[in-house]
This record gives sequence, structure tokens and C-alpha cells, in this order.
Amino acid sequence: MKEIEELWREVRELSLGNNGNIERLESPPSSLDLLRNFINPNKPCIISNAINHWPALSSWSHHSYLSHSLSSSSVSLHLTPTGLADSLTTAPPSSPSPLCFASAHVQHHLPFPQALHLITSSSSSSAFVAYAQQQNDCFTTEYSALANDCDSHIPWASHAIGAMPEAVNLWIGNEHSQTSFHKDHYENFYAVVTGEKHFLLLPPTDVHRLYIRQYPAATYTYSSDTGEFDLKLDEPTRYVPWCSVDPYPSPENKDEEISKFPLYFNGPKPFQCTVKAGEILYLPSMWFHHVRQSPDDGGLTIAVNYWYDMQFDIKYAYFNFLQSLHYRSTLSPILHEKVTEETSDSGALASSQ
Amino acid sequence: MKEIEELWREVRELSLGNNGNIERLESPPSSLDLLRNFINPNKPCIISNAINHWPALSSWSHHSYLSHSLSSSSVSLHLTPTGLADSLTTAPPSSPSPLCFASAHVQHHLPFPQALHLITSSSSSSAFVAYAQQQNDCFTTEYSALANDCDSHIPWASHAIGAMPEAVNLWIGNEHSQTSFHKDHYENFYAVVTGEKHFLLLPPTDVHRLYIRQYPAATYTYSSDTGEFDLKLDEPTRYVPWCSVDPYPSPENKDEEISKFPLYFNGPKPFQCTVKAGEILYLPSMWFHHVRQSPDDGGLTIAVNYWYDMQFDIKYAYFNFLQSLHYRSTLSPILHEKVTEETSDSGALASSQ
Repeated sequence: MKEIEELWREVRELSLGNNGNIERLESPPSSLDLLRNFINPNKPCIISNAINHWPALSSWSHHSYLSHSLSSSSVSLHLTPTGLADSLTTAPPSSPSPLCFASAHVQHHLPFPQALHLITSSSSSSAFVAYAQQQNDCFTTEYSALANDCDSHIPWASHAIGAMPEAVNLWIGNEHSQTSFHKDHYENFYAVVTGEKHFLLLPPTDVHRLYIRQYPAATYTYSSDTGEFDLKLDEPTRYVPWCSVDPYPSPENKDEEISKFPLYFNGPKPFQCTVKAGEILYLPSMWFHHVRQSPDDGGLTIAVNYWYDMQFDIKYAYFNFLQSLHYRSTLSPILHEKVTEETSDSGALASSQ
Repeated sequence: MKEIEELWREVRELSLGNNGNIERLESPPSSLDLLRNFINPNKPCIISNAINHWPALSSWSHHSYLSHSLSSSSVSLHLTPTGLADSLTTAPPSSPSPLCFASAHVQHHLPFPQALHLITSSSSSSAFVAYAQQQNDCFTTEYSALANDCDSHIPWASHAIGAMPEAVNLWIGNEHSQTSFHKDHYENFYAVVTGEKHFLLLPPTDVHRLYIRQYPAATYTYSSDTGEFDLKLDEPTRYVPWCSVDPYPSPENKDEEISKFPLYFNGPKPFQCTVKAGEILYLPSMWFHHVRQSPDDGGLTIAVNYWYDMQFDIKYAYFNFLQSLHYRSTLSPILHEKVTEETSDSGALASSQ
């Protein structure tokens, strides 16, 4: 559909830039600048020198500091076979479709020192990959013992948005954990404390390129007795709209993935950035993001993110309208037509939130 | 096209409200509030008590004050047969189409006292209707003698937008002048000084409802010798994309207009407001507006409007995308299909600006 392709082109031409880079600010913007130049136009940026005063930037590199501070804290830990949580995987035999949306086994009430040990010992050869990433305002609950190490909110963002964050989350993992393409209905300020986060970003205008479809939900159960995972469909069956694209397919799957998802692989390249320790990524609401990470010398990537309520305004109405449209490529052969028809159907369902 | 109708519905449901009223503020907003609650979501509002300190609010009611202050000023005056300038009218016989886009006869370098006399004596029985509405930053040029009577910009708007106005225009007319539906690529702060302005407003999401089509441009020439107007097509021929809808058709034309423009007349009712002397309308960029006016006791409606550059961002890209789509009603009979096909073609052309 040439009109949709023109939209992808125009939003880059007018506002986001064509080089796939994210704008960088050397110091925190004023609240007005943040609203005017980034939140309003729904445009990401990376901000340096905004959290230099956080004690976390030096102390969290030391596992002993974390273990000591959180010695009496119980936390939630997400366990998966390979580090891919909240992502698509081969469905169990009972599934109505070959792929399902798999959630991690969540181990609640784990003493933090034990959780930290499980995270640092996670590797491709271990029984599981562990990731502390409970996205329920955990920084102010499970990790409240660390409250004095960071700000409880991003002052210039709170002032711009006119509200405090809806949730503050802590993420502790290593290079084996990654997050598949998805979007959040929040304005997101993502501060990296140790290690680096590598983002792929696509604006909401590019929704058709992610092939959002309905997948049956499933959840891993890990047995410490057998050291094995069991993946079962949730009951009653429920469907989750999720992005179908894996941006880093294995070499043997690459050709097939490209032919299945041509709008992603043949369209404008995603915006790409690495957020280093001490930097904040402003990740605008409704942007699709895929996240990988590199650890610091101690083997960990730690980040704190602040979710602020977004405005459900004309931009959101336009997005829902766009997503409700079928994408019909004027160039694709019949096979692709079929694929995209399916996509749009599930995309339309996915627009309810 | 049910998706487009859903967009009209959703932008009202989420952001603008369903009652057709414009939000009213009893005092000027902070710059942050203006950005966050109105400019960012592209939502109009009326602001009271923002210009109480303007000397113009009392002095401009007196014709003697205006004539005296501008006794040595030369101004531009727009003359039309009936008060409809920049609007559609029956085209001259040589025209390729029955309607054309007619611009006023502009009388330049007229001593202001004479212009004021021509405006106040404009009536439905006079040879012409005169309207001082030169939209070229005229307040700071032709009318610079009045500079101390108003602020040169709207401080909280300039602070929010981060720039001074691109143009400040003065409008002096009476009840016989009206402005047909159109949109501007500016953030507009419209301050009424005497009389009242009556606006009909439609958000940019409703673009298909205005049936924007290409009309040949024409210009009136008024001869003071004959007291008659001549309307000639511009040469070389040029086309202007303009809204086809007259929201106030005469009783004898009403049925025909409704059948020609069903999306306007049968869709959600336009937002409607009256802006009184001392009030400011924030008219967001890309909103379609139709304007009528009522004079004060002295017979004049006077307003000053401040045009600020808009951001050409994701909202603008979404608008152009929407406008590039053909509207196909799933319910309309074949005749309507044809009409809307034509509309969309010209709409697509109209998106270049």
C-alpha cells in the first residue's frame, strides 16, 4: 500500500531523520524543551549527564554492595531456557498454532543474594537464564532498600508531564536476556546504571512492519528437581497480540524470515542505539522496541526505567486508525498478499488495549 | 469507510469531547499546561482574562480613536460583492468548472479613515463589502501606529512554542464578512477586541468531510466608476485546493448541499464557539475553521491574530497519510462513490503545501 510506505518515509523526512540515529542531548532538557521537541512530536532521544549524581552509578557495580543492601529483601526472578521471555517460541503440541507467546517462570520471594547468584551464573550452557525484570513498580517495592541510590523520578520529565511516574522498574540481567519487539502505552525514561542496552526502535507509523498477530499465551514452569522447563498453554486459552518479527534470525532461518516479513526486512532500517551506563533513553509511547544488553566487567546489566502515563490524544487515534487498515502491497506476489491479510486481521484485534 | 468514521469518533471520545463544545480557561495557562494540554494534543481552547491589560479593549470601540491614531496610515482593504472573500463562487463563463475560488479585490494604500468609512458603510445593499484582513503580518506594518494598544505577542504562547509569532494580523470588518472553511499551517491565537467571532471547527481527522477539491483561482476587480465587480480567472490558470462545504446553505439549496456533502452534514456536528471581546481562541494547526462575526455597538468586529510556526511532526505525517486515502463509504449508493472518488483525488493534491 503505497500510502502507508509514504507515511514511513514522511515521518522520517519531517521529524525523525533518515539516518537511523537517535538524537543525543549532552545535558537534561528543560521541561518545555522535552515536551516541545520530544514528547509532543513522539521522538526519542538519549540524554547524558542527567544522573551523574546517582550513588547507584558507582555502588551498583559491586555485587557485594547489592547483596549487602538487599540482604533481607525478597525479589521475583524470571527464568527461561534461553533468555527469551515474553517472546514467541515453538508451541506445545496441544497448541492451535505452531508458535505461542511464552512467559517466563517467575520465582517469587527469592532472597536477593540467591537471585543475584542465579543471574550471574546464567549462561548458554546453564539450565536457565535468570532475569530480574518484574515490571510492577518493583523498584519502589521489592528493591526499596536501594531507594536512596537513584532518584525516585526524573524531575524534568515529571515536571513536563505534570505527574509522577506510574511505575519504576529495576532490571538486572546479563547478555543472555533479551526482550522481543513490543510497544508500551507509557512514556518511558530508561536509565542504564551498569553495562549497556542495545535498542532497535521503530515508530508507531511502522506498525504493519512488525506483523502483529494473535498468539496463544503459554507459561514456562521450571522444576529444580529435574532442571527442566515445561511449557504449557494458559487455561482458559487466551490470545496475546505480539510482534512476529525476530530482527536477528539465525543464519539458517534468515531467508525464510525475510520472505515471511518483507515489510520489516526490506523497509527503512530501524533506529538503532546503545545506551551506556549513566545515560537515559527517552523511549516515546507506542514506539516498538527490541532490547539486547551487554554486561559490565562484573557481568551485569542493570537499569531503572520510569513509566509515565501517556496522553491518549489525536496521535493515539491516528495510530489506531492506521493499525485498523489492511496493508496491501501493490508489489507483493499472491503469497505475500495472503500473509499480510492475516497480519492485518490480528493487527486490528490488537488495537484494543 | 468505516475505519475513517471510527477515527472521527475516537478522537472525540479520547481527547476532544463529544458535545461539540470548546474547553474554556478562566485565565491564561502556564506554558507547560498550554503545550501539554492543548498544543501537543492539537486541541482548541478559549482563554478569558488573558488580555484585560490591552488598551485596545477600551480604545478600539471608538472610531474616532482609530481614525486619529491611524490618520496618516495607509492600509489594504479587501472588497467583495457580498462579504465572501477567499471562497467559492460561480465561475466566469470561460472557466473549466462551474465554481471557482474567488479572491477579493485588494485596494492598497488607502488612507485608514477612508477604509474605516468603507467598512462601516458596508451592507447587503451597498456596492461592496469591505474587510481589512491583509494576512501578511499587517499589524506590525500597516497598523504599527496601534502597536502600543496590544501585546506584540502572546507571552505564554511564545514561551511554550519557543519562538515569536511568524505573523500578527489585524482584522476589521462587520457582520457581512465571513471566512469559508479552510485550514492554516500555523498555531493560531485569535484575540477578539470588539464584537464577537463565531467559529465552526473540525479537527484534521475530519478532512474527508470537507470535500477538498481543486478549484480554478479567480480574482475580483472592482471599478469605482461603474460600481461593479468583474471576476476573472487568474492567468496562467492555477488551481487552489479548497473546502467545498458551505455550512450555512440557503434554504432553497439545503437539500442539494446535504446530498452533495453527506459526510459533513450527516457526520458528527462541528465544534462551535463564540469568542467575545477580551477572549482568545487557541485554534490548533490544521483545524478546519469557518468564521462569521457580529459587530459591537459601533458596528465593527476587530480582532488580532498571532500565527506561530507549527511543528511538522508525526501528527502532520499522519494527517497527510489520512488525506491521501480515498474515502469509500460502505453504505453510499454508486452516485456518492463517484463524488467521493473525485474528492479524494483533489485531496491528495491538496496535501502538498
